[in-house]
Amino acid sequence: MTDILAGITVLDLSRVLAGPYAAMLLSDLGATVIKIEQPSVGDEARGFGPFINGVSGYFVSVNRGKKGVTLDLKHPRGREVFLRLAQKADVLVENFRTGAMERLGIGYGALSAANPRLIYLSLTGFGRTGPRSPDPAYDMIIQGMSGIMSVTGEPSGRPVRVGTSIGDLSAALFGVIGVALALFRRERTGKGGLVDIAMLDSLFSLLENAVMRAAVEGAPPAPLGTRHSTIAPFDVYPTKDGAMVLCAGNDVLWGKFLDVAGRPDLKGDVRFSSNRLRCENVEALTAVITVILSERTTAEWIEVLRAADVPAGPLNNVADAMRDPQIIARGMLSAIEQPGAGTFTVAGSPVRIDDEPPPAPKPAPALGEHTEKVLKDMLGMGEGEIGELRKEKAI
Amino acid sequence: MTDILAGITVLDLSRVLAGPYAAMLLSDLGATVIKIEQPSVGDEARGFGPFINGVSGYFVSVNRGKKGVTLDLKHPRGREVFLRLAQKADVLVENFRTGAMERLGIGYGALSAANPRLIYLSLTGFGRTGPRSPDPAYDMIIQGMSGIMSVTGEPSGRPVRVGTSIGDLSAALFGVIGVALALFRRERTGKGGLVDIAMLDSLFSLLENAVMRAAVEGAPPAPLGTRHSTIAPFDVYPTKDGAMVLCAGNDVLWGKFLDVAGRPDLKGDVRFSSNRLRCENVEALTAVITVILSERTTAEWIEVLRAADVPAGPLNNVADAMRDPQIIARGMLSAIEQPGAGTFTVAGSPVRIDDEPPPAPKPAPALGEHTEKVLKDMLGMGEGEIGELRKEKAI
Repeated sequence: MTDILAGITVLDLSRVLAGPYAAMLLSDLGATVIKIEQPSVGDEARGFGPFINGVSGYFVSVNRGKKGVTLDLKHPRGREVFLRLAQKADVLVENFRTGAMERLGIGYGALSAANPRLIYLSLTGFGRTGPRSPDPAYDMIIQGMSGIMSVTGEPSGRPVRVGTSIGDLSAALFGVIGVALALFRRERTGKGGLVDIAMLDSLFSLLENAVMRAAVEGAPPAPLGTRHSTIAPFDVYPTKDGAMVLCAGNDVLWGKFLDVAGRPDLKGDVRFSSNRLRCENVEALTAVITVILSERTTAEWIEVLRAADVPAGPLNNVADAMRDPQIIARGMLSAIEQPGAGTFTVAGSPVRIDDEPPPAPKPAPALGEHTEKVLKDMLGMGEGEIGELRKEKAI
Repeated sequence: MTDILAGITVLDLSRVLAGPYAAMLLSDLGATVIKIEQPSVGDEARGFGPFINGVSGYFVSVNRGKKGVTLDLKHPRGREVFLRLAQKADVLVENFRTGAMERLGIGYGALSAANPRLIYLSLTGFGRTGPRSPDPAYDMIIQGMSGIMSVTGEPSGRPVRVGTSIGDLSAALFGVIGVALALFRRERTGKGGLVDIAMLDSLFSLLENAVMRAAVEGAPPAPLGTRHSTIAPFDVYPTKDGAMVLCAGNDVLWGKFLDVAGRPDLKGDVRFSSNRLRCENVEALTAVITVILSERTTAEWIEVLRAADVPAGPLNNVADAMRDPQIIARGMLSAIEQPGAGTFTVAGSPVRIDDEPPPAPKPAPALGEHTEKVLKDMLGMGEGEIGELRKEKAI
């Protein structure tokens, strides 16, 4: 069921990436997500390119399917309207710096008193506790601090950034896990709760065995380019027309590879007769494989290796990946028809429950597009009150 | 509440990484996780280094806190015991290739008929549908196919691997989201369900706006080393004693940086007077910042920049990150006292609910360590039957 969160209302106060992405995942799963933005200003991501007819593709890609409401949280009447919305909501997502919501008088304490069933997701750079808690952070700061850049890059080069904003995105994923678990608990206890997710914690936890290796080996792991630390062959190799990935790391797969390659004679080569030896002699191994693979094209190799059940695959760029038959068959590419702009192509949700097809993506909201409708539908507000709020610039 | 999943029983049939990591997250959150392994063989990750006294740190790091049961699923009596366990379980996690569980007679259809409340998490390289569905995959294959490597690396270099197994880990995170949502739904409907997560879908979805950019711009995005595509300064720069990250991407932060740097004269430099211009003149900008930052050490810069609220941070290796005061204050480092081996240091869970401290990590199981106890406690099995199963090598 792709609408597993049907009936759940999410208030999304967040900007740019971690919060919007978390709320987008909830929207993709059927929740009604109301994005609340500052009147006439809005999420700064509305100004991030590329654009089609002035509409930000960046904004559309992570705010699809949400309803857009403007509300000035620094205005007393704006804050009062917000509190009424929070009383009707199930989940709140925010990614302000620690303490900002409290300074507005709408921190977790106040909201939870007004609505004990509310689940409050706080996404910050450093979390709500600890010495760095109030510090500003961006994905790049967190990638640098977490250690993930130090294991990414060429062995002889400098650390490089993971090419997607994995600091924001990993926090969003852990945040959605926290929200889903809190929803599960609320069914049993009737109570909401506070989910406190730090980008730094999230990315650090994804280092997983690198942390253990640094402690056991007494030295931090180094970047290995495209190679695996303890399995070989498990790398990128050149082919006749490009490059490809080959993972024949155990002895059975290595033997199958040599058969497909027409080099069964190498099965007797003592330098390569176990994974340990292949790792120890990885330069000689790479040289041998490079000679073999350069004889055919990537597509030819992948076809024969797949037929022999030897794990192999292309080294795709993003456009290649978007043309991949498996990506297309899984419905992972979605076209959003954005009014006034045109078609934006985005990656769909990877969560498949009960073999249901992925949801059809909906457009992102214009700034304040649904303000009146939401105030009427959720709060039963009349035209008069809405007019007053507008006059006072509270909405 | 760190034990938000207390009372939930998970059967973990998985090996190596994606499945074990997903089940570990469930264990960290309070679930009882029973890891089921092939008698006398076990999870192949038990053979992955580094080791302390012959115990695999790799295995301990992602199987901490689980109970260990051996069961031969190809033996009729082993399968029968498994079915009885599945009738008592809430969640099953497996990462065999698509179709393998069906060939054993314990696919989702059979298990769901035996226990309609069961939530079944399938983690595969390519998902349960589509042309590549049955193909073998490893993290490296998925990193190559998804496009993430094509945006990671130096602009002048070749694509590099993200230095953590992000293909496995992202699938695990989406899998836990699916399981948590299915638990939520089960509270309302009484019914379990099938969660079908593909590593390729998961990693492709994390490309997020790169997919949109490839479509809008008509060309795939290229790797940028440490730089951001549309914000400047947002990069790694050398300092007197190393390198650091500086993110002063909007005009206010850029002005603050120049004040801290003692270079307010540069506020009038037309090459740098807006983010767009700083991006257009990024080489000149980098040269100017490099001269400024090379005058002090990383620690000195971070102190003064943080005092001025300018986002900046160190470029840590994994050992540096493990010493970071914020990582330590958040309880993100855990020491596991593994019997017969010693202390393994691992990254803790980043999910904080209701300000509860992170769970104390428990050791990983030896192969079959809890077989008898689990069969007695969960199935009420007697010594006689357990002895027979052992004699027949079914456990």
